[in-house]
Amino acid sequence: MKVTVLVRPKEGVLDPQGEAIDRSLQGLGYARTGVRQGKVFDLDVSAPDAAAARQVAGELAERVLSNPLIEQYEVVVHG
Amino acid sequence: MKVTVLVRPKEGVLDPQGEAIDRSLQGLGYARTGVRQGKVFDLDVSAPDAAAARQVAGELAERVLSNPLIEQYEVVVHG
Repeated sequence: MKVTVLVRPKEGVLDPQGEAIDRSLQGLGYARTGVRQGKVFDLDVSAPDAAAARQVAGELAERVLSNPLIEQYEVVVHG
Repeated sequence: MKVTVLVRPKEGVLDPQGEAIDRSLQGLGYARTGVRQGKVFDLDVSAPDAAAARQVAGELAERVLSNPLIEQYEVVVHG
């Protein structure tokens, strides 16, 4: 089952990559966007139904894909 | 206007980070997931309406947030 996991820096956690991008954008003449950068993972989870796929993906997100101390994750199950 | 830009490696383009993660997952006893890693950007675009926000975000995605040679992007405008 196709699953997307979005991993983002928690609110209040510094995001130096985002800040660097925002400065670049301003250098190009764009207004400040307050951009924050995270990661997206597209994966195929073998599970009998969407609820099981969501559970497995959540486990992967917590154990491997994110750092729960500073990042939060969101699981989207497709179809 | 809140916008999310998803940047992913194009199909056929190698994704060494994804491959490393997949190997780690298998080392932990999970089945192969074929995971692919990309980036997610959450930003605030000043635009009068959703169509304008989408256009600005697309421009930022093309110029700064992605490498169009090897990555594709998707723009999601919120509300």
